Amino acid sequence: MVLLSGGLDSATTTAVARREGFEVNALTFDYGQRHDVEIAAAHEVAKQIGAARHVVLPIDLRAFGGSALTDDIPVPKGRSEDDMAGGIPVTYVPARNTIFLALALAWGEVLGTGEIFIGVNARDYSGYPDCRPDYLAAFQAMGNLATKGAVEGRLPITIRSPLIELTKAEIIALGSGLGVDYSLTRSCYDPDVMGRACGACDSCALRLKGFAEAGLADPAPYRDRG
Amino acid sequence: MVLLSGGLDSATTTAVARREGFEVNALTFDYGQRHDVEIAAAHEVAKQIGAARHVVLPIDLRAFGGSALTDDIPVPKGRSEDDMAGGIPVTYVPARNTIFLALALAWGEVLGTGEIFIGVNARDYSGYPDCRPDYLAAFQAMGNLATKGAVEGRLPITIRSPLIELTKAEIIALGSGLGVDYSLTRSCYDPDVMGRACGACDSCALRLKGFAEAGLADPAPYRDRG
Repeated sequence: MVLLSGGLDSATTTAVARREGFEVNALTFDYGQRHDVEIAAAHEVAKQIGAARHVVLPIDLRAFGGSALTDDIPVPKGRSEDDMAGGIPVTYVPARNTIFLALALAWGEVLGTGEIFIGVNARDYSGYPDCRPDYLAAFQAMGNLATKGAVEGRLPITIRSPLIELTKAEIIALGSGLGVDYSLTRSCYDPDVMGRACGACDSCALRLKGFAEAGLADPAPYRDRG
Repeated sequence: MVLLSGGLDSATTTAVARREGFEVNALTFDYGQRHDVEIAAAHEVAKQIGAARHVVLPIDLRAFGGSALTDDIPVPKGRSEDDMAGGIPVTYVPARNTIFLALALAWGEVLGTGEIFIGVNARDYSGYPDCRPDYLAAFQAMGNLATKGAVEGRLPITIRSPLIELTKAEIIALGSGLGVDYSLTRSCYDPDVMGRACGACDSCALRLKGFAEAGLADPAPYRDRG
């Protein structure tokens, strides 16, 4: 079970799960995000990496509001890393990983697995509370009391976050070594209608810096570069 | 924040939250359940008890399958209490309360509350792992690491389950005292198209026994009684 957004981190996580010999069941959410080119990217990534199943589940978080990724709050652009380190950004979606992991628990129990891979990263995104190791440990503990399979001892829940301590450059190097085609992945919070990245939001800035530090060119399209 | 299904337990829980002076925000899920008369009942109950807001969120758990409440597995009928005590029933929906509580966390953070009421009951439904106190405590611990409001100390998460140790008869007596109109609530797993209860599934059996023990007549419609 892999949570696959179509971004760089979740694509790399999917490739790690495949390398470990898992049959990959990829789960993507259509949650009313403005960057819905992610969903098309997730489909391409699942195909390229060889997922056994890929489900896109609609769940309309716009009913609740509260985030730049689903509301009409402007996405911040051109922020430095010091800016990003200063607290939780407006692009935070309330309880997003909790909702996604809860749904992964459900599908995992139906398919017969308690191994859930998630591409969170505590290093580059310290602002999101639900990307930290203590949060993931608490979710795992809760999950082991939540499902029939876990309580009966057949399907213990393990939350796997292989990228959690890696830098963006290390993630890109890892994924490149595993054959991830990063031209298929999308990270931008504010892409244009052609799916081209803005190059200026927090997510683009971290991605571009990661490719530069890894000594690789980012093969994804950016609108200012054609 | 109250999880309101339209059944007897969640209606009583909603009335308890109102009695405590809370402004009630009621959250109902349209998860592809076969007993969707519940959703209409939830609307009537929210109105009767005086909820400030009522949101019905569609989330299609049929994409995952795995339960009598969403699939075409027959609902068991005519079981004794000993039968019901014998393990987790087929009407179990994988990770249902985890999914519902995760979405309540999200909406609660947007509205500015971490108090979440859920009408679970460990006594009558020992078969469901996600109705037990240790599960709810683990969810609360996880929730307090999951959201911006909780991590910043503004909105600590408290999972309130005022019915957890009550018998069905005690729940009915409590709700009757608080003015709950039980004619609006629906509990049956297999109602007919008129919304009338079957009187024979586990949920009907527990409800009818509860009303009998409370010395009250169940005002909800049953198909065998007209």
